[in-house]
Amino acid sequence: MTTRSWWGWGNVEDAVTPDERRELVSRVRAVLPDADLTFHSAPDPSSLDVPPPRVVPPGDLYSVDVVDRLSRGRGQAYRDVTRNLAGVVGPLPDAVARPRTEQDVVDVLDWCSSHDVAVIPFGGGTSVVGGVEPRDLDRVVTMDLSLLDRVLEVDPVSRAARIQAGVFGTSLEAQLKPFGLTLRHFPQSFEFSTLGGWLATRAGGHYATLYTHIDDLTESLRVVTPAGVSESRRLPGSGAGPSPDRLFLGSEGTLGVITEAWMRLQSPPVFRAGASVRFASFERAVEATRLIAQSGLNPANCRLLDPAEAFLNAGAASSVLVLAFESADHPVDALLARALELCGDGEVVEGAASQWRKSFLRMPYQRDVMAQHGMITETFETACTWDRFAELHAAVVSAATSALRAVCGIGVVTCRFTHVYPDGPAPYYGIYAPGRWGSLTSQWDEIKAAVSEALIDAGGTITHHHSVGRDHMPWYTRQRPAPFALALAGAKAALDPAGVLNPGVLTTRST
Amino acid sequence: MTTRSWWGWGNVEDAVTPDERRELVSRVRAVLPDADLTFHSAPDPSSLDVPPPRVVPPGDLYSVDVVDRLSRGRGQAYRDVTRNLAGVVGPLPDAVARPRTEQDVVDVLDWCSSHDVAVIPFGGGTSVVGGVEPRDLDRVVTMDLSLLDRVLEVDPVSRAARIQAGVFGTSLEAQLKPFGLTLRHFPQSFEFSTLGGWLATRAGGHYATLYTHIDDLTESLRVVTPAGVSESRRLPGSGAGPSPDRLFLGSEGTLGVITEAWMRLQSPPVFRAGASVRFASFERAVEATRLIAQSGLNPANCRLLDPAEAFLNAGAASSVLVLAFESADHPVDALLARALELCGDGEVVEGAASQWRKSFLRMPYQRDVMAQHGMITETFETACTWDRFAELHAAVVSAATSALRAVCGIGVVTCRFTHVYPDGPAPYYGIYAPGRWGSLTSQWDEIKAAVSEALIDAGGTITHHHSVGRDHMPWYTRQRPAPFALALAGAKAALDPAGVLNPGVLTTRST
Repeated sequence: MTTRSWWGWGNVEDAVTPDERRELVSRVRAVLPDADLTFHSAPDPSSLDVPPPRVVPPGDLYSVDVVDRLSRGRGQAYRDVTRNLAGVVGPLPDAVARPRTEQDVVDVLDWCSSHDVAVIPFGGGTSVVGGVEPRDLDRVVTMDLSLLDRVLEVDPVSRAARIQAGVFGTSLEAQLKPFGLTLRHFPQSFEFSTLGGWLATRAGGHYATLYTHIDDLTESLRVVTPAGVSESRRLPGSGAGPSPDRLFLGSEGTLGVITEAWMRLQSPPVFRAGASVRFASFERAVEATRLIAQSGLNPANCRLLDPAEAFLNAGAASSVLVLAFESADHPVDALLARALELCGDGEVVEGAASQWRKSFLRMPYQRDVMAQHGMITETFETACTWDRFAELHAAVVSAATSALRAVCGIGVVTCRFTHVYPDGPAPYYGIYAPGRWGSLTSQWDEIKAAVSEALIDAGGTITHHHSVGRDHMPWYTRQRPAPFALALAGAKAALDPAGVLNPGVLTTRST
Repeated sequence: MTTRSWWGWGNVEDAVTPDERRELVSRVRAVLPDADLTFHSAPDPSSLDVPPPRVVPPGDLYSVDVVDRLSRGRGQAYRDVTRNLAGVVGPLPDAVARPRTEQDVVDVLDWCSSHDVAVIPFGGGTSVVGGVEPRDLDRVVTMDLSLLDRVLEVDPVSRAARIQAGVFGTSLEAQLKPFGLTLRHFPQSFEFSTLGGWLATRAGGHYATLYTHIDDLTESLRVVTPAGVSESRRLPGSGAGPSPDRLFLGSEGTLGVITEAWMRLQSPPVFRAGASVRFASFERAVEATRLIAQSGLNPANCRLLDPAEAFLNAGAASSVLVLAFESADHPVDALLARALELCGDGEVVEGAASQWRKSFLRMPYQRDVMAQHGMITETFETACTWDRFAELHAAVVSAATSALRAVCGIGVVTCRFTHVYPDGPAPYYGIYAPGRWGSLTSQWDEIKAAVSEALIDAGGTITHHHSVGRDHMPWYTRQRPAPFALALAGAKAALDPAGVLNPGVLTTRST
């Protein structure tokens, strides 16, 4: 058995060990000799002053227990962790609903709609954008869907399964395994996030090309809205009007509660080939990555790390491209060989991929322990077309560096590509800077705002796969076309006339 | 120079030759010795009685010329051709607008919105579903976008181009060619349809797998709506809320007029490998096709013809799978070899692919000349998951056969797969039956209704890539989730408050 951390990422049992922590601190000290790295323990949650619920819905679906409310009031953004560490309470939901059936979901929506109580659907709570935080809301029920956690039906012929939205990644794959099938969707949050959360936020998987966004893995959706249950047909493709599923994908709980989905599955890979390639410069590495992304080779992994990222997380000191090919059907060695040809004068290196993989899973844990040492360690991500990347990259690095200098005095900015498309990369930035204990949240907010401005000004998206939530709203509203905002508000008014569904996200509350 | 046929498919110069016609007729005679195959000439369009326009908008953007109105009142469905051949006039637009600039588009929408005049956006007019027909409307302007026909900008690094929506397929590819790039979107209507039409109807290209639907080739859209111009950012991927582009893709002119798009391009293929495989039974052919669709080999062509289809259009007498692989980057012979392994005891045959290709481009012309001989020759298409295919196929063939027997006494039903997905095929049916001159339209309507019922009852989509238009509305409204209909109506009301955009399609007129 494992215990979820009440204040930070993942399981208490998997937290950074004392040895790992000492190693991390000494690595930071080497770069930032003057940083104050005093360790601060997380507060005792029972010592926190939790305000009483402002509304108590009737019936046994709801809990107003303090721990239930406290553990569902925030996501897992850096600013969530630092507020937890600082003992800052709230905003909190007034009650937590845990539906056991779809009818329960209907009942909760009905009750909340008719009592003007906001509803925030909650999967694994790993939002890093304030998506589940009841900010600026009067009366709120958070609907935790984790009891809807079953694979209900498997169609091995079409390779698809009907799955309840509240299932966590690990359980989902365990339930599919006896059928020899996998969803193959592995976001970094895999163990602690749910299918419904992935769907509602258009999550990106671990794989670099082709079917990696949850959008493309979705065959049909079942969504409970206040205006009725929406169920799309199981179809491999359709041209019948705008896609109903694509309206709910990314709707972040504002149009309805996803309760089930038919998901496209795959056979687990049998053939594998991979290599890591070191480049003389980041520019040459970007160019090789572009050629591979446009080659039609479609590597499962095509993760470019800039020198700083490679140094911190893959034990190398130059730009490294981690390449991997996989197939359940045929050998992939020829594909890798061709991809390596496209790398030109890049040089194959050993060990980087496995070290990267190890770091990748530890990153969120390390972020949190470093926050306890007063370090600001966080990421932001975007996507842009290849022609704009150099300019966007320069603008973002410059904005981040300036912000770090202004806010923290010093700091490091790293970059990697998490996904690559024929027409552009999805760059993912990391920042590492010494914060001021007591001001970590506001320091982060200032840095985040500066970087978000730069991203949006440079033509990127405010999020490639972290979603919008509440934190990205100022930039999302600049990014999206104004008529689309009108259309979305019109759709929401039709499905959620009382305006109770996750108010403040994507559309502004109409009441 | 070529001349578009006023009553049927394509160019007058490319119509079926007398020799080709004699050959077709004798082939039909062999199967249907008793059919009345009397030839009927198309009427002289100047002899038709065209009612005067009910509204004449002011200014030089509009034409009320009889030929302009007559040639834009219908699409290219069988029922459009038979009505033309029978000299049945109308419904017609009252005026045709031909905007030269985006501002002209804005002006037309403004004028029509404030004068309660419906607007039907018109690309190449190849709709086979009544999408451009001003049925049951009082006063209508058809907006022909064909003057907006330029590739405006090419980004060779990201491989994308900004293209005006009114450009026809041939011109589009000709404008891209100097850049060594191609959109590689080749629907059967390619020569006579436009980018805007493809986008508005979610067209399917010629290729069988991967990037073939226009949806996936779209990087961003510019759409003029009565509520303002919507322009999405050029992004290779984004997780910022529901996709704005996916709302307009498939909106069939009901939410706005697409004026420009950034489209994803590719390098033309250099490496090619192909083969045709004959199977002992349709069932075994379907099974092999499924294995290939799920293999990750992603053939460019993977077109399965049932024995009747193969007999009529590929000179073979058993189920044939036409396979082809293409790449601009690397050899594809190993992929073909593996696909052939997956075909099991299928047998490679020569010549079928080239004959099929030739037939494919002639089909619409042949359909029309056969209509002149009183034959009913038409297609309908769908998609379903693999597990349901056998049942859907049996139901559709049975419904079509019964309908043909009831309506025509006899007839042939054929099936092919136009596209295949890991989770299901897109079956495409052809019917061939002797009609009754003078009743062809109503006979077709009866057959179409019977088949559509069967498709929808069997869990398919009413259209995989022909769109909804007016003809598919009764089944589309059964297919789509009811709450999605509400959401779409809400979005439309927000973007098109006067309800003037293509009324009767997708949403019902609110006024």
